[in-house]
This record gives sequence, C-alpha cells and structure tokens, in this order.
Amino acid sequence: MTTNEKIELLRGEMKKLGLAAYVVPTTDPHLSEYTPDHYKFRHWLSGFLGSAGTVVVTMEKSGLWTDGRYYIQAAREIENSEIKLFRAAEPGVKTYTQYLCDELKKGDVVGISGQFFSQSGADRLKKDLAAKGIELNNEHDLSEKIWLDRPPLPYSPAFVLDVQYAGETARSKLGRVRDEMKKRGVTHYVVGKLDAVMWLSNLRGADIHCCPFAISYALVGPEKAWLYIDERSLDGEVSDKLMGEGFEIRPYESIYGDIAALGEDCTLGADFNAVNSGLTAAAKQCSLKNIRDIVNPFKAVKNETENKNLMECYENDVVALTKGFYWIYKCLDEGKKITEYDVFEKLIELRAEQPLNLGPSFDTIAAYKGNAAMMHYKPEPDNSAVLEREGMLLIDSGGQYLNGTTDITRTLVLGPISDEERHAFTLVLKSSIAMMTAKFLRGTTGANLDILARGPLWDEGIDYKCGTGHGVGFCLNVHEGPQNLSQSLNSAAFEIGMNCTVEPGVYIENRYGIRTENDVIVAPFTKTEHGEFYRFELLSYCPIDVSGIDPLLLSGKERAWINAYHEVCRNKLRGRLTDEEYAWLENYTREI
Amino acid sequence: MTTNEKIELLRGEMKKLGLAAYVVPTTDPHLSEYTPDHYKFRHWLSGFLGSAGTVVVTMEKSGLWTDGRYYIQAAREIENSEIKLFRAAEPGVKTYTQYLCDELKKGDVVGISGQFFSQSGADRLKKDLAAKGIELNNEHDLSEKIWLDRPPLPYSPAFVLDVQYAGETARSKLGRVRDEMKKRGVTHYVVGKLDAVMWLSNLRGADIHCCPFAISYALVGPEKAWLYIDERSLDGEVSDKLMGEGFEIRPYESIYGDIAALGEDCTLGADFNAVNSGLTAAAKQCSLKNIRDIVNPFKAVKNETENKNLMECYENDVVALTKGFYWIYKCLDEGKKITEYDVFEKLIELRAEQPLNLGPSFDTIAAYKGNAAMMHYKPEPDNSAVLEREGMLLIDSGGQYLNGTTDITRTLVLGPISDEERHAFTLVLKSSIAMMTAKFLRGTTGANLDILARGPLWDEGIDYKCGTGHGVGFCLNVHEGPQNLSQSLNSAAFEIGMNCTVEPGVYIENRYGIRTENDVIVAPFTKTEHGEFYRFELLSYCPIDVSGIDPLLLSGKERAWINAYHEVCRNKLRGRLTDEEYAWLENYTREI
Repeated sequence: MTTNEKIELLRGEMKKLGLAAYVVPTTDPHLSEYTPDHYKFRHWLSGFLGSAGTVVVTMEKSGLWTDGRYYIQAAREIENSEIKLFRAAEPGVKTYTQYLCDELKKGDVVGISGQFFSQSGADRLKKDLAAKGIELNNEHDLSEKIWLDRPPLPYSPAFVLDVQYAGETARSKLGRVRDEMKKRGVTHYVVGKLDAVMWLSNLRGADIHCCPFAISYALVGPEKAWLYIDERSLDGEVSDKLMGEGFEIRPYESIYGDIAALGEDCTLGADFNAVNSGLTAAAKQCSLKNIRDIVNPFKAVKNETENKNLMECYENDVVALTKGFYWIYKCLDEGKKITEYDVFEKLIELRAEQPLNLGPSFDTIAAYKGNAAMMHYKPEPDNSAVLEREGMLLIDSGGQYLNGTTDITRTLVLGPISDEERHAFTLVLKSSIAMMTAKFLRGTTGANLDILARGPLWDEGIDYKCGTGHGVGFCLNVHEGPQNLSQSLNSAAFEIGMNCTVEPGVYIENRYGIRTENDVIVAPFTKTEHGEFYRFELLSYCPIDVSGIDPLLLSGKERAWINAYHEVCRNKLRGRLTDEEYAWLENYTREI
Repeated sequence: MTTNEKIELLRGEMKKLGLAAYVVPTTDPHLSEYTPDHYKFRHWLSGFLGSAGTVVVTMEKSGLWTDGRYYIQAAREIENSEIKLFRAAEPGVKTYTQYLCDELKKGDVVGISGQFFSQSGADRLKKDLAAKGIELNNEHDLSEKIWLDRPPLPYSPAFVLDVQYAGETARSKLGRVRDEMKKRGVTHYVVGKLDAVMWLSNLRGADIHCCPFAISYALVGPEKAWLYIDERSLDGEVSDKLMGEGFEIRPYESIYGDIAALGEDCTLGADFNAVNSGLTAAAKQCSLKNIRDIVNPFKAVKNETENKNLMECYENDVVALTKGFYWIYKCLDEGKKITEYDVFEKLIELRAEQPLNLGPSFDTIAAYKGNAAMMHYKPEPDNSAVLEREGMLLIDSGGQYLNGTTDITRTLVLGPISDEERHAFTLVLKSSIAMMTAKFLRGTTGANLDILARGPLWDEGIDYKCGTGHGVGFCLNVHEGPQNLSQSLNSAAFEIGMNCTVEPGVYIENRYGIRTENDVIVAPFTKTEHGEFYRFELLSYCPIDVSGIDPLLLSGKERAWINAYHEVCRNKLRGRLTDEEYAWLENYTREI
C-alpha cells in the first residue's frame, strides 16, 4: 500500500467519525522516544522512519512536522507522497496547531488518541484549538481500524540490574520517592515513562529496540508500590527480587483500574508532561495533582557506583570502536568493498565482544560523505554507500551495557578531503574542546553553556540544527533529561553527577557532515568566595582523526588539549588492542 | 528619628489595622526603578539607599531583601538597626514570601499598598500567602500615616523630543500600538511605566532624578489617546504639540476614573507585570485582558535615526569622560587633594559642556580601592575617599542627552597595583572583548550569550553577582528591557537595533573592584544557508587604562582588538581635546 493509499484509508475512518483532521504523534502510552513496533503507526502511515515527528491529516491535505535532525531524511522519505514537510522550529514555519487553526473552521472536530498525548499536551492542544472554536476528541485510536498487519506488544524476559551496577536498591529509591511525595503533598505517585519505571525498580528488559526496557508502569503508594507488567516477562526469581524490594506485581493494563479505584482520601501525583492523558483521566475518585517529575531528577544524577561503572563501560566501548575504525581502514587498504551498512553490522559485533554488552543503544549512524549531512541517517542493508579512500565517514553509535549506556560520534577521514572540510572538522573540534573544558558556577543551565560549542561556528556563519548535547541514561535511554545543552531555555541546572553528550557538528546538505561527540559528567571544580564552581569530566577517550585537523586553526591550548587527550586514549587502549591495531592507533593519534 | 523608632511607628499603625506584617517595596505607582522622593518610603523607613530592595516588618522582626549589587552597601546602611539583611537570590536564602509564610500563622493578615505592586506581583503574593492560610490586604498605604515630612510630587516643565532625535512621531507610534492592539484583541491599552509613556508620546520632563520623565500615564483607545499629567507641567506649545499628535490631555489622577468609566463594549489590555494593581482594579465595567507589554519591544529596538544619534551622543560623552580622566591624573600629579565626590561633581560639569546634555543618567559611581567592591557605591560629599597615586578608581557614569542616554564604566589605575589586581583587570578586559566580538544566530537570548563574558572569570573561580548587561533607553531610562545579558532565562531575543551594556567585573570585598562597561547595538553580521547571524556594533569608544593590562594574559587577537579599539578612540577624540589632553591620551592608549 502506498502512503497516499494509507492516508485515504485514514480519511475514510475520519469521515465515518465526523473528524475534520487527525493527529498522529510519534509515541506510545509511555510517551517513549523509542517505541515498540506495535505503536509505530506514524511510521506505517507516512513512510517517515525518523524518531521524532507528527503527521496531521485533514480531508484535503497532510503534513509532517519534524525537527532539524530529520529535515533531509524526511523530505526524501515522503517525497513520493502527498505529505508536505514542515521544518518545525524554523522561523516562520507554523506549528501543526497553528496549521489546524488555519485549515479548519469553527465547529470542526480534530481527533487524537489520548494515550499518545501527555495530559499537558492534550490540554494545550485542546485550548489552542478552542480559541478558533475547533473541538478536540481524544477517544479515537484509528490505527486499530486501518493498520491490519500491526505487530503485537512484546514481552521479553526481564531481569533485575544488580546493585553493583545500579549503586542503589529499588527499596532505597522507593524511600527517596516517598520522601519527595510527602513534600509534594501526594499519597500516590504514578510513573509512566519506561526509563523511570526501570530506574525505580532496577528492572531491565528487551522490549524496545535498543533500550533495555520491560514495558511496564509503576504506582507508588505510602506503604505499597505496584509494578504493572505482562507476567510472561517475569520468571519466579525476578518476581521474588521485585517483591523483596517492596513491589507488588500486577497485570499491565490493570493500572487504569487501580487508579480508578484509589479512594477519596488519596491524592494521586502525576507529572502531566510525563504521563499519558488516559492514566490521569482514570483518576475519578481520588484527588489528582500535577507535580514535577520526581524520578527524573534523581535518575539524572549518577551515583558514585554508576559513575565508576561508566568510566569502565566507556573504556570498553572505545575498545570496540577503535577496533572498528582500524577494521575500516584496513578493509579499504586491502581493497575490500565495504559499505556503511557493513560498518553498522561490524560495530554491533565488536561491541558484543565487550564485557556486559546488551546490544546497541541506538541504530548506528554510519554516513559517508553527503549522507552525513542527515543528522540521523541510518544505513539500510540494500541501499548503503560503498566506502572509498576519500572524503569522510561519520559514525555515531553506542552500546547498552550492564554498567552503562554509551553514545560516541567520530568522523573518520578516509582519504583526501577539501580545505573547506578540514576547516569545518577543525572548527567542530574547537567547539568540542570549548565545551568540554568549561568551568561554570553552580546553577548554570544548558542554555547558558550552549554557546561555548556553537560560538566558534557562529563566528563563521555556521550553525547545527539540533542541540549540542543530551543526558544519557545508565543502562537506560540514550537520551534523558532534564539536563541538556541547547539554546532553548530549559531551567534544569547542571548538578554534580549529571552526564551529558557534547556533540557539535557541521552539516552541508548533499556534501558532507562532521560531528565529534564526547560524553562528560559534571564534577566539582572549586569553591571560592564567589561561589561553587563545576567542571566537566570526560568519560569518552576515543581517538579523534588528526588528519582532519588544521593545526594552524588551533590555539596553543587547544593543540595541547588534543595531544594530552590522545595520550590518555593510548594509555587506556594499550593492552586492549592487537599490536597491529595499536601501531595504527599511534599514528592515528600522533602529536600535532 | 532612628530606623528602629520609625519601625516602631509602623508597628503602631499595623497594630491598629490588625496587620501581622507589612511589606514595603521600592517603587511608585508607575513601577519605576528610580522613584520621585515622594515615594521613597523604603529609603526613609530603613535607611538603605540602594535602588532595589524590599523591607518586611512583622511585630517582632524586620528584614531587607536586596540583590548582589547592594549586599555590602545594605549591610553597612542598616547595621545600626534591627533590620536583618537577606541576600536575595543566593542559594539557601528564603524569599520574603517564604519568610512571611514561616514567621506568620494561619489567619494572619499581611498589608501592602496595591499601587506599589503590579497586578501579577500582588496576585503571586496573595496566592503564595494563601497556601499558608495567610491573608493579603492591599489597601493600606501606611507611609501616609507615619511619614510626616514627605516631599510632594514634582511637576517640572515638560517638552517634546523633536523627531530629529526620536526618529518617529508620536502619531506613528500610536499607529503601531493600535495595530498591535487589534492583533491582541483589545480596544484600549493602558501604559503605566514612565519610560513607556515618554516613548509613546515623545514627551520628556525632569520629574525623576536622572531620568527625563514627566510623571504621567497614557491610555490608548481605538481612535483617541489620553495623556494623564499634572497640567502645571505643560505650557501651551507642548500641549498643542501633544494634541497635534493625537493625545487628549487629562488630569493625572483621572486615569482611575476614566478606566472605571470604560463601558462593557471595551476590552482594556494591560500587561499585569507593567501596570500597578490599582489601575487594573479600576476596570470594573469593561473586560480586562492581561497581554504582553506592547510598547517595550518597540522601544527597545532603536530606529535608524536614534542609532545615528547614539553614535554622536557617545562620541560627545566620551569627550567629557576623557577630559575627566585627564583631570584626575593631572590633579594627582600636581598634588591637589581630590576625593571621589570631586570626581562625581567634575563629571556632571564636563558632561554639561557637551551638546544636548540634560544632566547625568544616574548618580556617578566614583569608587576608590575597596569602595569599588560595592557595585552601586555612591560617594557622599562629606564622607568620600581621598584619591592617591596608587590603586584603582572605578568610575561608572552616564549622561542624558536629547540624542541618547549613555552608561560607561572605566577603572582607572591611579598608581601601583598588585599583580592580582592587574590579573583581574586583564580578565575583565578579556571578558568584555569576548562578549563585544560575539557573533550569534537570530533568536539568541542574553541567557545564551552571558557566559561569553563570565567564562574567562569562571575559569578562575570568579563571578560577579549581577547581570553582564542591560538595555539602555534613548533619552530615557538607563536600564530598560526586555533584552539583557544575564544567566537568568529571559526569553527576549536580541534583535537588530537593540542596544545593551557589556559590563563584566571583579569585586573583592574591602579590597578592590574592577568593571569595564561598554555599550553595543545589535547589527547584521551575515546570512548563510545556516541562518541569519548578528553581531554587536560598539557605541562607546572610551579609553581603557592599558597600565592595568597584563599583555601576556591576552591572546594575539585580544591584543589586536585593544590596539585597534584605541586607534578608533584616538581618531574620534582628536580635535575634541586640548593638545595637552591629547598628548596624555596617546600615552594612555599606547599600543601593547
């Protein structure tokens, strides 16, 4: 079926229900970034495979809103359909809500399925549409009607992450959450996001592609706590462990009923941004209170055990990556034909050889030359570029491990590159160094820091259409908050123990893409009469291709930084590589 | 009367009215930063003379909340009273609302005078107190009861700022405001802030110390507009001009009645943050709508005429300053005894010699050695330090001119300084240069930019407890918004034509203070495939004392910047100084 045919099917259902428009976001009832296939209706409907985007269908038109990471990819994937691309967040581009207000008339009805919207999101949409006299109906899951070959929900075997990795028992975490619940004046607290449920319970699974998640909800009461999960995921030992930590196991879907059954004397706390609007709607008898997420700020701050584990985890991950880089150059030197997709597969294989690996943390982006301008390009087995001894190959990849989650990007110079490319490569390095060496006052946010990375590019009229960095979970989601590095005015300040990626880049459509991504964790710097200052400590010591660098563009300090960085890289990798690999590394990281 | 005696008088009145606490902010019914003496009740009551602060009095205790600019000064000014200093905005310091909630009990009543609070401020206070069961009564102006020698309201002669300076007629401005009113769905718009009324009407006066303001309100209707002012301020010619632009003149206090008389078919727009809660409360019959300030964003963007005027204005202002700097060194060389206060007076005199000067734009801060650690120190005639040929003198001053408002700080090295001081002086210069040479993408805010200035200091564990910069009015308030440079997440993006100060500093209590303040205006930089980029254009070319600089701390680019800057300074000042002054300047700005 073509995209246009699918959209016509959808319009048929809309017509029956009297809906003038239908909105399909990219999420699941846990408001996940990565969703099980069961919930990939937006993929199925539009053909756009990116991890973020919303499709809006009216009776005459259809549009896809996605962000800067996906402008190029989305345009390509929807080019043979009627769907029009809206480059969200660009100046002058209307939001889909504005679009709906412009396209529809008073009295029209827009349909959504409430379980795919947070309560805040649904409220906002309803309010914005109401200003134009348009109604919102949140009770229609049209995917059920037209998506007939829809995959079922998974129930992979789940396990408990040992405290030697997690650094804190679930019982202790429940205690901290309950202390916070008391402060917020709620008797019960509902946890809907999968990574939050996993952190709280120390449970892990394999239900979601690249995420070690078991599909589940949690509900915390003043004395009891409940975990809602398909019991087929749990063996007796795991159930016993969970119960030993203070959880009662309940069938997955029963959370709606259990919330409905909370009595008048209960106050259910929920973060209206983090819980689907079906769950909040279920609270019929008890009081309902919108409170800021309790788990997220706890989860973002890595404890000492997690921190120590992460150091080790990154060391192992870099071994896999370095072996992979060497393998690429060797193949090319030996005249073997390898593609982007071969790199994709090779890295999965190399990571699997590392201790405690659970697979990749996201689909490797191995993007050659112009493909690398698509920030979230994914090579396909049967349609992937053949690598040659020229230009650059961008590799953005990461692994899930019992001792952490990684996310590293390196851009490999496979052969001759232009002066412009070398200049851009060096600017990206300057940006990275500026951010990674930042010192900052307690209370500083990502919006305050972001320009350190963007500044060296802005000086030359270059920008990248994405954030500079994001938090990374611990054996959890590769993207997590609340901290991030971006221009947007996110109020989450960086605290000691929070980690973050630093990933500036230059992307020139159809020509090249360069990104250098490292991972840092906030550490103390100094306390003075002026306040308490923090710094970033590096987690990722992964070789940076010096043949991409124009040393004349670097300051003395920057040159010293890269040389010292590579010395640490070599020290960490010595003894972990073959002699042949290490000899290659010595040249690859030669002093400049 | 001592401060403690005044507070006891206040408590007597509170007791009569059954108030458990009373809150005295620093503002007037126009929510001004600089208020006429008539409204300086907080000054009178507490003895603290700073321009920002709130006093809270309960039956047993009293506290003063002020910001980092005033920590040192406030501590000194209240030290002989019962008032306790609260260093607002420092981590762990409670707000005065939290303090009230902690000190008072359920059922207690807190008194304020509604005209000294914005509608938003009053609402917020009411809500926060209500959470603890504390009531807010906004109808008590206790100053009237106990401040018996209170000065009357002024009514200085007002005049109309010619369009050759303002660049736009009041009629045109009213048109732009009405266009915006239509978009926001209001028939009437009330303007309460004095600088906004002045901008809108092009009227100027001299009612407020250092501000060319005539005390007045404006109300804009769909066809008519009303200016509320003491008619004793206006001569016939000025009234005619105002009426010619479309204003009807009404008695100052009649705005309350006129708002009350707006009928049911009217919708009054007011920015609840910018209008006192008495004005909004007056809207009894008409609808009332809280809308973002209409005038402020217009006013912040200087038009081409204002921009051209500003360039000239700053050139003249720097002539006065340079002559003043020379005069200081000459006095010291000749063995004349001069004090900080002599500098204060000399600069008023020198500025008055410049074309179009209307007086100072704020009280000159001339602060020697340790006094300069007090960011807003004001030398007093009978208690001001004698200058000597050693240490540093910080001079922060500005002028009001028909062609603009200035604000410049230089720190003069009067003689030997320590290595630490030279190091700090150079760091401040590095900070300044980093900000002034910034290039940034359209949409960038002050919170995004701020670290460029703060970063070089943070690298050494130093911070300044104030913003990096603020907007400056055009022949208006020396502080204006919405743009500013600071860590706080203000969403106002920098637009072409917005101006701002850049004023990083180092302040070491009791020892020294260094600030270098320049003024910049946003100008286009470049447009590329990545977006539209802006830069800062310098307004202030005022000599920076090179004897404070450690050239070894500067990069090659920074050295080139300061040498090129001084070349422009000399070119602009050549022909405006005596031969003796210019010879001195040549050495003062020598190449490093």
